[in-house]
Amino acid sequence: MASEFDLIHRYFTRPAPSAILGVGDDAALIQPSPGMVLAVAADMLVAGRHFSYSDKAETVGHKSLAVNLSDMAAMGATPRWALLSLAIKDADEAWLQGFSEGFFALAQQFGVELIGGDTTSGPLNLSVQIMGEVPPGQALRRDGAQVGDEIWVSGTLGDAALGLANMQQRLVLTPAEAVACMAALHMPQPRVTLGLALRGMATAAIDISDGLLADLGHILERSNVAAEIEFDRLPASEIMRHHIENATAQQCLLAGGDDYELCFTVPAALHQKVSALSKKLDLPLTCIGSIKAGNELTLLKAGKYMLFTVKGFDHFA
Amino acid sequence: MASEFDLIHRYFTRPAPSAILGVGDDAALIQPSPGMVLAVAADMLVAGRHFSYSDKAETVGHKSLAVNLSDMAAMGATPRWALLSLAIKDADEAWLQGFSEGFFALAQQFGVELIGGDTTSGPLNLSVQIMGEVPPGQALRRDGAQVGDEIWVSGTLGDAALGLANMQQRLVLTPAEAVACMAALHMPQPRVTLGLALRGMATAAIDISDGLLADLGHILERSNVAAEIEFDRLPASEIMRHHIENATAQQCLLAGGDDYELCFTVPAALHQKVSALSKKLDLPLTCIGSIKAGNELTLLKAGKYMLFTVKGFDHFA
Repeated sequence: MASEFDLIHRYFTRPAPSAILGVGDDAALIQPSPGMVLAVAADMLVAGRHFSYSDKAETVGHKSLAVNLSDMAAMGATPRWALLSLAIKDADEAWLQGFSEGFFALAQQFGVELIGGDTTSGPLNLSVQIMGEVPPGQALRRDGAQVGDEIWVSGTLGDAALGLANMQQRLVLTPAEAVACMAALHMPQPRVTLGLALRGMATAAIDISDGLLADLGHILERSNVAAEIEFDRLPASEIMRHHIENATAQQCLLAGGDDYELCFTVPAALHQKVSALSKKLDLPLTCIGSIKAGNELTLLKAGKYMLFTVKGFDHFA
Repeated sequence: MASEFDLIHRYFTRPAPSAILGVGDDAALIQPSPGMVLAVAADMLVAGRHFSYSDKAETVGHKSLAVNLSDMAAMGATPRWALLSLAIKDADEAWLQGFSEGFFALAQQFGVELIGGDTTSGPLNLSVQIMGEVPPGQALRRDGAQVGDEIWVSGTLGDAALGLANMQQRLVLTPAEAVACMAALHMPQPRVTLGLALRGMATAAIDISDGLLADLGHILERSNVAAEIEFDRLPASEIMRHHIENATAQQCLLAGGDDYELCFTVPAALHQKVSALSKKLDLPLTCIGSIKAGNELTLLKAGKYMLFTVKGFDHFA
């Protein structure tokens, strides 16, 4: 069987021209751009929890990096470098090859270099750390939302959760719908370009990983404000609209998680600029409500209060 | 049961005054010191592999950070910031409290701030990433060893492996010996101060995590040189010396792993300076041999070649 060092070399050692020293020493050495602030985040994916053993290895590789890139997008940071720590039961080379292909395809798309990490035997676990750069004072934090700001979201919400609900037989999709929703679940597209464009426009931002209500809730809590959003304005795919009367589908839309879209707040005066940005990026950006004084999250449907109890995904709830 | 967010807040949110933004956003924000190079490493510890479920949580917290600090030591970097990604089956609060106490006690000792990470449910897995700083050109890499350099190691070798061997009944220690060796296994002391002092002196360095022979072998491979070391010069504790005729003990000394001492090379002209450093730091530093031309690692005992086959620890061997 191939040794740990062989495996690292074969599947995870790629050129890292922007690093002073990449994979192969006790630590990697990088020189951050002068004056830039470093944005640093980590996300851990566990088999049987965040993905299934039966998922294609390529999609697991894609997603393990995508969820981290999404954190950079939510900060308005340019992603630069990643570390990957990987526990795997057996050194399954076919799996590792597929995984590394999915990982590096996305890394290349965003100019991210893998500069280090760790491999060990153990229950399948992928822990990625990402580092990006942002000019001082320009990061998109969660704590800057102001009363009167508009609340926007990118893309459409809930399709990934619909795919999961269908798989778990909590809802029935057509085969074609299931394929589309599973693609949304397995191959999320991190909104890095959007995040960079929102520097200087957005007052707060977060990526929607745990569901719109939970993640918008984090902005409200950190910014110490309230929000009013309208159910009928939430951006829904054709598939979602087809199932929108179903309670499970509504839950997917509001609190499904795994969207990896951005939720952000902007001063109302910038409404046209955000609309123009949507056209420029060819990415739906939808105003779903506004920031109010207080600390409640209010959801309206046809002018009436809509009750909700599911606040999103909690790993220990 | 406490939610993920409650747990993060309770056990893993500590002040991080040197960060622009610590735990609680999509990413942490840090401002590296102007002109410094960033050293970045990650180590993953898996329950049942790197530690036991029955180990005290405090020692697991200590070790999860210690092995990462050891990577900073081996680079001659000043450790600054850490991320912690943690998978745990149930939100066992007593365990988390003990773990965080062990982790933060060591972090405080070295001025390291926890600025982010992730928590999720899953088989117990601790993935730590560490970031440190080093002036440009002064990092202790593996690839700088020169023919004629002396080879040194810090501390004593093999006690941690003796503890493990005793636990696995491959060797018998007295109860008092077992206590001392288990302390070496569970509570390694990262040689950060030594690493910093070796800047400008050492031509290459590595921390001994996989065993002396394997780790010195990495220096040889990266530096494209050979080495000759003498068995009788290897620094051994009183316990090790007591068992030194035992083949298992010899294997622990040469290839046991989990030492987290530094192995480094220095020009022979600096011999006295290294001896003086040993006194200043009150830490044994022992010259065990020298770098030669070629690519073999030769081990001598009483002037004769000593055969060895165990090259250290490989996670998939």
